[in-house]
Amino acid sequence: MGLVVQKYGGSSVADAEGIKRVAKRIVEAKKNGNQVVAVVSAMGDTTDELIDLAEQVSPIPSGRELDMLLTAGERMSMALLAMAIKNLGHEAQSFTGSQAGVITDSVHNKARIIDVTPGRIRTSVDDGNVAIVAGFQGVSQDSKDITTLGRGGSDTTAVALAAALDADVCEIYTDVDGVFTADPRVVSKAKKIDWISFEDMLELAANGSKVLLHRCVEYARRYNIPIHVRSSFSGLQGTWVSSEPIKQKQGKQGEKQVEQALISGVAHDTSEAKITVVGVPDKPGEAASIFRAIADAEVNIDMVVQNVSAASTGLTDISFTLPKSEGRKAIDALEKNRAGIGFDSLRYDDQIGKISLVGAGMKSHPGVTADFFTALSDAGVNIELISTSEIRISVVTRKDDVNEAVRAVHSAFGLDSDSDEAVVYGGTGR
Amino acid sequence: MGLVVQKYGGSSVADAEGIKRVAKRIVEAKKNGNQVVAVVSAMGDTTDELIDLAEQVSPIPSGRELDMLLTAGERMSMALLAMAIKNLGHEAQSFTGSQAGVITDSVHNKARIIDVTPGRIRTSVDDGNVAIVAGFQGVSQDSKDITTLGRGGSDTTAVALAAALDADVCEIYTDVDGVFTADPRVVSKAKKIDWISFEDMLELAANGSKVLLHRCVEYARRYNIPIHVRSSFSGLQGTWVSSEPIKQKQGKQGEKQVEQALISGVAHDTSEAKITVVGVPDKPGEAASIFRAIADAEVNIDMVVQNVSAASTGLTDISFTLPKSEGRKAIDALEKNRAGIGFDSLRYDDQIGKISLVGAGMKSHPGVTADFFTALSDAGVNIELISTSEIRISVVTRKDDVNEAVRAVHSAFGLDSDSDEAVVYGGTGR
Repeated sequence: MGLVVQKYGGSSVADAEGIKRVAKRIVEAKKNGNQVVAVVSAMGDTTDELIDLAEQVSPIPSGRELDMLLTAGERMSMALLAMAIKNLGHEAQSFTGSQAGVITDSVHNKARIIDVTPGRIRTSVDDGNVAIVAGFQGVSQDSKDITTLGRGGSDTTAVALAAALDADVCEIYTDVDGVFTADPRVVSKAKKIDWISFEDMLELAANGSKVLLHRCVEYARRYNIPIHVRSSFSGLQGTWVSSEPIKQKQGKQGEKQVEQALISGVAHDTSEAKITVVGVPDKPGEAASIFRAIADAEVNIDMVVQNVSAASTGLTDISFTLPKSEGRKAIDALEKNRAGIGFDSLRYDDQIGKISLVGAGMKSHPGVTADFFTALSDAGVNIELISTSEIRISVVTRKDDVNEAVRAVHSAFGLDSDSDEAVVYGGTGR
Repeated sequence: MGLVVQKYGGSSVADAEGIKRVAKRIVEAKKNGNQVVAVVSAMGDTTDELIDLAEQVSPIPSGRELDMLLTAGERMSMALLAMAIKNLGHEAQSFTGSQAGVITDSVHNKARIIDVTPGRIRTSVDDGNVAIVAGFQGVSQDSKDITTLGRGGSDTTAVALAAALDADVCEIYTDVDGVFTADPRVVSKAKKIDWISFEDMLELAANGSKVLLHRCVEYARRYNIPIHVRSSFSGLQGTWVSSEPIKQKQGKQGEKQVEQALISGVAHDTSEAKITVVGVPDKPGEAASIFRAIADAEVNIDMVVQNVSAASTGLTDISFTLPKSEGRKAIDALEKNRAGIGFDSLRYDDQIGKISLVGAGMKSHPGVTADFFTALSDAGVNIELISTSEIRISVVTRKDDVNEAVRAVHSAFGLDSDSDEAVVYGGTGR
């Protein structure tokens, strides 16, 4: 039929039983006539245990050596998985990131893939093998040193390999059934999404949805590789992420065209903090000097807002959000440049949360923004910052209000599972 | 000063504390002005644990995949060791067998090194790094697959790297103080040997001494690399294995020329069994057909003896020894060829032991053989088979007699630690 790239996370291959279960699933895909390339993460908590060991011998482990150490993790899971498949009577070969041709830059612990040359993988599957590939790892183009791709790297490996091999689909197996309209732990009525566009998925991932990482989706969009996110525990269809709506099999009723929803879902994120620079002279170049200082400290920021200047003082405040983990660095960078920038004080607030409504449909429906704010207002949630894109509206609120706000918005836009239909706006829509 | 290759076994790097201790020792060698290449095994029981895991997913794990799995072991220890050295303020880089240029044949689980191209190691040490290299592993020349060298492979890696790098010495760190004149667990008065020739060490290793494996010594002899076997726990001088006696520092007394002893030591081995082929027609070609059958089954044999034929029957018996682990295979091979060979029956005996006296000095001293048999006779030990080389005499006895026999011989040749002097034979000796 085709070439399928499958990716199994650490929880799917946590022990011998899990590995055997995954092996069966791979063999099934093979029996259905597919060539199969399976990308695996390290078993269960292996990576954390290795980091513990590293910290026992060195408080700040060398990046090069940490990558060498951590890549032992996938080496184990991939070899065991290949053995388990062979034990089911099918041929399999495991390959390290380097052997699979995953070429990266030289930034240890968070390398970026710059090329994939999967010649050995192609040969292996053409010879009838299932090719098992270590996720998360590669080899640097310049130094030939082993690198790792950082958090969620195995998903990126899978999509990058799928692109290089021109695969028909990249299946990401995980411990949930797919991508939901909201985090099911917060919204019990959240629904599994059958199909979502790359663009909407990118916005969800950038704004707190944890199922797929942003850079993995970005990679898939660039090479137009459909992703199928699904559970490794059930055999159910999960969520398709692709450029065009896909046709889904509906049992005896034949195929069903999945339509793009007006609104894809509601994401939330409580991992950010807000810094307010108080008493900034309201003159050209002030914002630039603040964000130059932040950028020089290699801190990524998210939302920015500048208050209207008070006419009496000629001073204004500038607020921005950033990952809590970067808070210290940003404060230090600003304090160091206090004289040059010229501000009164800094305020740091880590009791915030962000709620984002995502959907390409809102492009053509101005009413969405108004309905979003109404839903929040009805729920008694106060808005502190607002940021919008063509297909997303985000607001910052108190952290304690986040769950209530997500539920209110989810319900207001007809996303609840007991709702008959998503809210329909006038016009041609889509 | 020079280039030193050091090898640390699994027990030396069993945990974070062990790794830190080894790191200190390496840094010491570096501070003494040496370039250092350190070869490491997997931590403690890692290899056994990985084999356990493999058996949980597959009763007969694929050789290729088992090698992929097991090589994760050294990957961990080498990365951790490099981190620990860097933590002491010295530069270090770890390298896999493949990165270090250890090229092997394609026989998984017991590959042979066919070439070593240590370009990256040379560059790394020339740049001022300690190079840490994974023992036990390589990459196959033909398939580019990861291979392992089998038991004791890390020692071989160390010697092979030392040869390729033209090192001054290969230091093998272990949990004993060196090579002894007999197994100290059997002979409490066994003495550490200061120096031993490659030839004598080869005979000891081939006949039961476990400190160094035969193929490691063979490699060192071929490339004339001095080996220094020593404890990773004490700072003491251990045993030098080399072609010529070396000079040893003796504190303030200056240097002492170490002389070759007449007798190097007594080795014993209780891992073999004896097979007797009973009632073989005493005609040309019979022995050949027996050992052709054995060879075709890829069984290695050790000693062989053919009894004098009984004139009345024209039948004889042929006995040989072999590793117990190969007993089943040999019996099957002989039974399968019973018709062609023509024998009455097979006897299998695994209650035997072998005692070997090793020393180049015996070449020129015919009295050694007589004294050896006298010692055994005085101890009441019955001899079942005899085999000799120019520098070794071996006998097979009952397994229960082995320890007593070793002690008797050790004492008779003046090797006991409370003995004033080794036995001296007439003539110029040596």
